[in-house]
Amino acid sequence: MEPAPSRHLKQGYLQPGKNAPPSPHVLRHDRYALSDAFLRAASSESVSVRSLPASRFALRDMTIATRIDLAADLGESFGCYRMGDDQGMLEIVTSANVACGFHAGDPRVMDRTVADCAARGVAVGAHPGFPDLVGFGRREMDLSPAEVRTDVIYQIGALQGFARAHGVGLQHVAPHGKLANMAVVDSGYADAVAEAVAAIDDALIVLTYAGELAESARRKGLRVAMAGFADRAYLDDGTLVPRSEPGALVTDSDEVVSRGIRMVLEGIVRSSGGSDVHVRCDSIVVHGDTPGSVDLSRQLRKGLTAAGVEVTALRDL
Amino acid sequence: MEPAPSRHLKQGYLQPGKNAPPSPHVLRHDRYALSDAFLRAASSESVSVRSLPASRFALRDMTIATRIDLAADLGESFGCYRMGDDQGMLEIVTSANVACGFHAGDPRVMDRTVADCAARGVAVGAHPGFPDLVGFGRREMDLSPAEVRTDVIYQIGALQGFARAHGVGLQHVAPHGKLANMAVVDSGYADAVAEAVAAIDDALIVLTYAGELAESARRKGLRVAMAGFADRAYLDDGTLVPRSEPGALVTDSDEVVSRGIRMVLEGIVRSSGGSDVHVRCDSIVVHGDTPGSVDLSRQLRKGLTAAGVEVTALRDL
Amino acid sequence: MEPAPSRHLKQGYLQPGKNAPPSPHVLRHDRYALSDAFLRAASSESVSVRSLPASRFALRDMTIATRIDLAADLGESFGCYRMGDDQGMLEIVTSANVACGFHAGDPRVMDRTVADCAARGVAVGAHPGFPDLVGFGRREMDLSPAEVRTDVIYQIGALQGFARAHGVGLQHVAPHGKLANMAVVDSGYADAVAEAVAAIDDALIVLTYAGELAESARRKGLRVAMAGFADRAYLDDGTLVPRSEPGALVTDSDEVVSRGIRMVLEGIVRSSGGSDVHVRCDSIVVHGDTPGSVDLSRQLRKGLTAAGVEVTALRDL
Amino acid sequence: MEPAPSRHLKQGYLQPGKNAPPSPHVLRHDRYALSDAFLRAASSESVSVRSLPASRFALRDMTIATRIDLAADLGESFGCYRMGDDQGMLEIVTSANVACGFHAGDPRVMDRTVADCAARGVAVGAHPGFPDLVGFGRREMDLSPAEVRTDVIYQIGALQGFARAHGVGLQHVAPHGKLANMAVVDSGYADAVAEAVAAIDDALIVLTYAGELAESARRKGLRVAMAGFADRAYLDDGTLVPRSEPGALVTDSDEVVSRGIRMVLEGIVRSSGGSDVHVRCDSIVVHGDTPGSVDLSRQLRKGLTAAGVEVTALRDL
Repeated sequence: MEPAPSRHLKQGYLQPGKNAPPSPHVLRHDRYALSDAFLRAASSESVSVRSLPASRFALRDMTIATRIDLAADLGESFGCYRMGDDQGMLEIVTSANVACGFHAGDPRVMDRTVADCAARGVAVGAHPGFPDLVGFGRREMDLSPAEVRTDVIYQIGALQGFARAHGVGLQHVAPHGKLANMAVVDSGYADAVAEAVAAIDDALIVLTYAGELAESARRKGLRVAMAGFADRAYLDDGTLVPRSEPGALVTDSDEVVSRGIRMVLEGIVRSSGGSDVHVRCDSIVVHGDTPGSVDLSRQLRKGLTAAGVEVTALRDL
Repeated sequence: MEPAPSRHLKQGYLQPGKNAPPSPHVLRHDRYALSDAFLRAASSESVSVRSLPASRFALRDMTIATRIDLAADLGESFGCYRMGDDQGMLEIVTSANVACGFHAGDPRVMDRTVADCAARGVAVGAHPGFPDLVGFGRREMDLSPAEVRTDVIYQIGALQGFARAHGVGLQHVAPHGKLANMAVVDSGYADAVAEAVAAIDDALIVLTYAGELAESARRKGLRVAMAGFADRAYLDDGTLVPRSEPGALVTDSDEVVSRGIRMVLEGIVRSSGGSDVHVRCDSIVVHGDTPGSVDLSRQLRKGLTAAGVEVTALRDL
Repeated sequence: MEPAPSRHLKQGYLQPGKNAPPSPHVLRHDRYALSDAFLRAASSESVSVRSLPASRFALRDMTIATRIDLAADLGESFGCYRMGDDQGMLEIVTSANVACGFHAGDPRVMDRTVADCAARGVAVGAHPGFPDLVGFGRREMDLSPAEVRTDVIYQIGALQGFARAHGVGLQHVAPHGKLANMAVVDSGYADAVAEAVAAIDDALIVLTYAGELAESARRKGLRVAMAGFADRAYLDDGTLVPRSEPGALVTDSDEVVSRGIRMVLEGIVRSSGGSDVHVRCDSIVVHGDTPGSVDLSRQLRKGLTAAGVEVTALRDL
Repeated sequence: MEPAPSRHLKQGYLQPGKNAPPSPHVLRHDRYALSDAFLRAASSESVSVRSLPASRFALRDMTIATRIDLAADLGESFGCYRMGDDQGMLEIVTSANVACGFHAGDPRVMDRTVADCAARGVAVGAHPGFPDLVGFGRREMDLSPAEVRTDVIYQIGALQGFARAHGVGLQHVAPHGKLANMAVVDSGYADAVAEAVAAIDDALIVLTYAGELAESARRKGLRVAMAGFADRAYLDDGTLVPRSEPGALVTDSDEVVSRGIRMVLEGIVRSSGGSDVHVRCDSIVVHGDTPGSVDLSRQLRKGLTAAGVEVTALRDL
């Protein structure tokens, strides 16, 4: 998955007229709203900046932006079991990845979560996972493409039921846990997820990160949004430092905020190896597992707003 | 649930102009296509015929018809486990009650069943049940209205996902097993099911039999279709003889066919007590659990056609 | 279930020699360790004290004691989901009701819980429930006796596996939630649970409260221990005030402690109606759902110890 | 897993005295009951016969035998769903691998299956699988060793509950489906399964085929029985031709019987490549999925008996 270096940044954004014809899936062009930070970055020597080919599948045809979506995994409670501070997160995020009952969530939780999203104007997305409640969808399963496709259709459909009941539409689909991981690196899983989304509603945005799913979804004509993580360390190839390794998490709140802002305004993150790496990011995924993480997310949102970034749902990018 | 005798048959169908204003949910009026059998029945002394108030919730505003839907429960296999002869039944029925994964069915089975229905023009309906796979949804569960409502929304939504993937719409919702039984006699369950249907898509037809669900669905503005059973014995009050009692099943094929024809053309069934009982019937539900039952269903369809009845899906009545 | 008043207290305990022959299941006799409180109670007019016939099924043949078991429901986490402060409760209780995977718990949680119990000398009991994870076993299900019996055998067996793996035996079986409630009032459920216990190991103690299960277990030759609740209000008939009613919970810690002590030393609890009611109690069930409840349980244990009561597992009573 | 060729056959069985000291787990020694067939095979040039190192983990320290166990997977029905002809197979087999509720089976099915085994004297073994009912335990899951270990303890324990209820002991543990496959090739899974068996009851026999599980179980002091398949084609390395390949199944009944007899009496099977391959076999696993397969199993049993082989449970070998 080591992406070939490209000169995409310089070519693409200072000379937009020479770009390939805009994709029909490009939602919005911020070509004329470039920040100083971007201009500094763009004029710098692009060979020192690693660029990911994934950028070509992005929701928007540029690396930098003045608008960003904030998303979180919500509705992961089950029965009597509570998980996460959904109410806290609903005040912060613009998009919700809502669990669909396979790895987490149940019909009551889904109903309540969609109702809360609808009441607050948070965009609703499906968060399908492996059929493994006891493993929270985090254990690899060797499913056939037909199994992945139908499991995903089932889950998106079920959530659409609640969306319809609450008078909202689904905005996006963001696979969960190990399904998400596998869909990024395994073309069979990627194609199956993308087929499911295309089959059920080709207006749904696929929220993922650089890899097979993004490519497959693009090939099927789906819009793809790229997820960035302000509180995670990145490797030089633009992928995340695995959680099992030291330094995987960025815990200093000031650093999280400044990384988030740079990710949005410059499309760059400083890797654990010290390089500046391109990260195409349409949505920063935040977490609400602990009270501290909710506060961190709140600070990130404040910091982004203070830096002139408009925090808005994917559908409005 | 003992219905008060009425003179509905005579009043209603020989003097249609004096009826209450036609319901907006009446799909089709067969007022002028009365068969000889009907005329014979109608001119007979109606006081000897028990009429069910349920008729006022029916899909059609009349007891007799020259069109009928044939429906069966399909897609009740699960994983490696096979149940029923779905391929055999798909050649016979015009509507399918498709299990949604709670009491039976799984995403592969649902996908295949909906695909088969779409290929053969069989109308697809959701067959939601209790969340009790090991009990096949046949065990009473004391759920709150919110639990019933959200379980039903979830299941309808999941099936809608497959319907959309195969380019068809859902026609109806027919609760399964004990959920169906309870929704007929318990207004809490009935309201919860009707609310779920109305919330997700108020164009869906509710397929049930006389009782609370029919009333509740009607109150919510939903169209209601009445299910009849040609192979089941009826009590004088128009309800079914419980399966646990002797004579509950009619097994002679000629009798099943003749009962089915009379049910459709005359709106009457001979009860186990020997009375002629009104049964409003928009859909005859047939079963495919055994090879014999598939043959029986096939003969019933042939008999109906030979008697001049058009067998067609609920949506076309 | 209104028990007939009896004069059991006076007859039974001041004249033990005239008792019926001691049951083979009586574990221990504290006849000569009567506290002042007991003597005061016993010499009072027993007709003013309602006595429950359930006392005849008790683990011990007396209402009062200087030893008591403290039990709590443990191991109710599931997968990533945490429930209760098991570590806190393990410092307090002498017996654990361990969930067996149907209403809560999973194999990892069961393994860890039994290991923790073994390490601390807490006696392990099975806490079988309805097969309803999403409902936490709190929703009534209409199961056949064979279904109840086999579900309970399955769950006890599974927990025994972990007990054997950790070198301990099971001490008792305490049904959970709605299964427990139904087994107290429905003789079909009661017999099914008792048959399951007797079939798998007739040395297991059944922990319940006055009702059908206690009677059925006794008839099958099983030892029965009676559960009391220091933090719950009682009705005059010795049953608990339903949680849905005001005043069902006793929240003042001093009152909980004093009620617990009186329950043990005198075998009496003051009902919500102001009467002194007999409660045969071999085990006080405490709860660890919240940090406050753990503290309350700790205070109760301290209070009992200070009052001269030995807190020890059921098997040592 | 390609075993190194050895001269085990010639060295081991014509010169038993020079063998390594007999394992304490060797159940029975048939050293002096060598058939003519064996002598012919043994005197032939052993380099033409591939020998598997797995033989050293076997229940018996020899390749040939005059006693054999016949085993089948039973109790794989679930709820309303039927699988296999258990009654037919119970007339044929001496050991049953009973599903434990994770990949198949439920408490009623387990209870009935164990009762039937007890009534007919068929030895009961646990057949634990992955927690994947919809996939029938045939889909690879990436579980931690702790997850495998605890899932297996849970399932063995649950079945032991029914065994105890019916007054029989468990004889063996035979992992199911993909868990069985993985435990043969993955030492992590193998150790976890073996640890589970050893923890719950080290008198249980592990029924598997040559590979990691056999080795791990042996190291933990467990008795290991080797499974052979008369109706499956073998590769030159002694492993099975995958079901996905042509010729994987032997369907000619005469051939199945003659292969079974040779497998037992000579310890040899003719591979798909035409070589004579050693297969240590303590139990021939037969299948009852179809009426034809039951007949085939019956013929195999008759053939074995006619050839002088005593068909008896593993515990009696």
